Amino acid sequence: MTTDSTLAATADAKLAISGDNTKLTKEQQLALINVNLAEILNPEIIEKVIDEGRAPRIYWGTATTGRPHCGYLVPAIKIAQLLAAGCHVIVLLADIHAVLDNLKSTVELVGYRAKYYERTITALLKAVGVPTDKLEFVLGSSYQKSPDYIMDVYKLATLVSEHDAKKAGAEVVKQSDNAPLSGLLYPILQVLDEEYLKVDAQFGGVDQRKLFAAAKDWLPRLGYKERAHIMNPMVPGLQGSKMSSSDPDSKIDLLDAPDVVTKKIRKAEAAPKVTEGNGLISFIEYVLLPAAQLLGKEGFRVDRSRDNLEPLVYTDIAKIKADYESDVLTPQLVKPAISAAINELLAPIQAGFQASPEWQEIATKAYPPEIKVKKEKKVKNKGTRYPGAAAKLEDAKDEATPEPATENA
Amino acid sequence: MTTDSTLAATADAKLAISGDNTKLTKEQQLALINVNLAEILNPEIIEKVIDEGRAPRIYWGTATTGRPHCGYLVPAIKIAQLLAAGCHVIVLLADIHAVLDNLKSTVELVGYRAKYYERTITALLKAVGVPTDKLEFVLGSSYQKSPDYIMDVYKLATLVSEHDAKKAGAEVVKQSDNAPLSGLLYPILQVLDEEYLKVDAQFGGVDQRKLFAAAKDWLPRLGYKERAHIMNPMVPGLQGSKMSSSDPDSKIDLLDAPDVVTKKIRKAEAAPKVTEGNGLISFIEYVLLPAAQLLGKEGFRVDRSRDNLEPLVYTDIAKIKADYESDVLTPQLVKPAISAAINELLAPIQAGFQASPEWQEIATKAYPPEIKVKKEKKVKNKGTRYPGAAAKLEDAKDEATPEPATENA
Repeated sequence: MTTDSTLAATADAKLAISGDNTKLTKEQQLALINVNLAEILNPEIIEKVIDEGRAPRIYWGTATTGRPHCGYLVPAIKIAQLLAAGCHVIVLLADIHAVLDNLKSTVELVGYRAKYYERTITALLKAVGVPTDKLEFVLGSSYQKSPDYIMDVYKLATLVSEHDAKKAGAEVVKQSDNAPLSGLLYPILQVLDEEYLKVDAQFGGVDQRKLFAAAKDWLPRLGYKERAHIMNPMVPGLQGSKMSSSDPDSKIDLLDAPDVVTKKIRKAEAAPKVTEGNGLISFIEYVLLPAAQLLGKEGFRVDRSRDNLEPLVYTDIAKIKADYESDVLTPQLVKPAISAAINELLAPIQAGFQASPEWQEIATKAYPPEIKVKKEKKVKNKGTRYPGAAAKLEDAKDEATPEPATENA
Repeated sequence: MTTDSTLAATADAKLAISGDNTKLTKEQQLALINVNLAEILNPEIIEKVIDEGRAPRIYWGTATTGRPHCGYLVPAIKIAQLLAAGCHVIVLLADIHAVLDNLKSTVELVGYRAKYYERTITALLKAVGVPTDKLEFVLGSSYQKSPDYIMDVYKLATLVSEHDAKKAGAEVVKQSDNAPLSGLLYPILQVLDEEYLKVDAQFGGVDQRKLFAAAKDWLPRLGYKERAHIMNPMVPGLQGSKMSSSDPDSKIDLLDAPDVVTKKIRKAEAAPKVTEGNGLISFIEYVLLPAAQLLGKEGFRVDRSRDNLEPLVYTDIAKIKADYESDVLTPQLVKPAISAAINELLAPIQAGFQASPEWQEIATKAYPPEIKVKKEKKVKNKGTRYPGAAAKLEDAKDEATPEPATENA
């Protein structure tokens, strides 16, 4: 779906947003919803909601574990596009999952992490200039321990076979005989969340496809309606696989200072002329170019003043890829351009953090120095509900024999 | 443990009960707790409670599905012995499990069934003359949907592997890839029930052994203490396997009229001279003889007036088995004796039912005629939590290829 026409539609839609959000046509809304997606299941459900004049309610879930970093920008940009399209976006802060992910975490600690996620994600969306009045955060613990919900968990566990639960979680839950039983329970919970959050669609990485297909099948067994599902492609890690597995600190934190960002990007893997599986090019495609479009900027800018050349300004990923493959756009040129664009994106977030003693206090309580590194390591290989650990689809499939995952930042 | 010495101890204990319950010695209490058990795990836990001068709290769980019938007399007699020993007995009426067992059942219907179980079990225990002031009924739904409980379900599911959950339920949960996921969840719930019911021990059939062993292992992982476990042997069905599988109505309902009981027992399978696997002889051993002892009767009486002989009166199962094997005690003699003893046992229960319009109304609402037969069929092959369907241990082990189960009545 990464076609020039959808990109053009996005640009069109952006113009409309800059003026009056309510003026978007149905086609412009759908173009923003669909841009850069890997796949969408039952798009007619979303179209019908738009036809009825309602804002489509779409949810994205994330476990509140490690610090959100640049890997979170991939789903965040899609959320920004959904908000720009006039959708009501619910971010499920899966705090119970976070507690279960590390049973040594206290409920209090996870509570601070949820607050940190809420602050950071909101700041991130504001940084790309989208309205956040239709952005809502819901804590998993606010309903996942309720009697109605748990009765539905019990019921769905009765209606779903062990085999089907395993199949649904095949790409996102580590599976073996010795894997925790909770891995079979998670798909049940994630499917029920659609009903309890009263959404029209769920958004996730394409690694969630089997789970989304299960949701379509399972909810009607309880008498609930089936939802649409929109899926981002799996995006290779910004810095390449070798670095991130050997050094979790190499991930770019959203609060990293400009020189730190520059240093980390400089060390990132980037084979010249190869765009396939290239984390830097993917980051431009799925984060920097759409962000520029949402902000109404001229495009992705590559400075060449060192060589006394005019800057290159791209509005089209196809052109970027062509130039990279022909070595017009070298790793040496693209890396500083990426660092500059990231720093520009992070600047308002960091300014907001600096201006808020409350946010700073939350950060300190959420990530006390002594356990930070351990947490980062724990969330690997778990799919897009843990974007910090999102693996390439090919890697994610092969979960019985864990390998170092590429990461989103 | 079915030795003459424990039977003698029971008789001794009975004498003590007839006088003043509180006068039981520790040895008499333990004799009543241990009589006829297949096995006990961590008896020292119960002994310590007695040493501390407390009444041991022991729970038995039953899913409130089909109508309680004579098969329920096997666990009920053990419960009677526990009460006679001064234990505090909690009967968990597993109403959520009953709803899950047949998702077409309404919560209201299952509620009436729970009330029916409570009435019937209480009447049954009064019928064998034990004090019921330390008998308590708890509905599963009263705590199994609470936030604390469900958080512990999530946590334990994280600490227990799929393999271990499967192993724990191996003999009581039907297992295959296509079996419902709930089968893996049930062991988690049953283990947590020990903590939430604040008991010192759980009682069940020896088919629960693997689950009980898991409970010892799992509860400490959550920081909870391990409990004792007492297990009844698996008792072959009163009427033999062939009848019950072909005709569920052949089971003896606790409200069956005397002539109906006589007719059903007359049709029961009973090979002459064979005591091994003989449901009639087992019923004498595990129900009629202990009931007679609890009631302070002379023993199990076999009328022989038809042959102009003196009646045989037994106080010892070994003597009954010897006489049956030598054909002194023929099926033709033993069947009327069993019918008479059952009718005598049921008479006060039925009188209570006849005298209570409220109980009658509960019965009508709990088991409306049109769905009665279907329910009876559904609860097969599920172990001693569904005593109506309790299978012999050998059968229960072979669950991948379901066979007609022998039943307790």
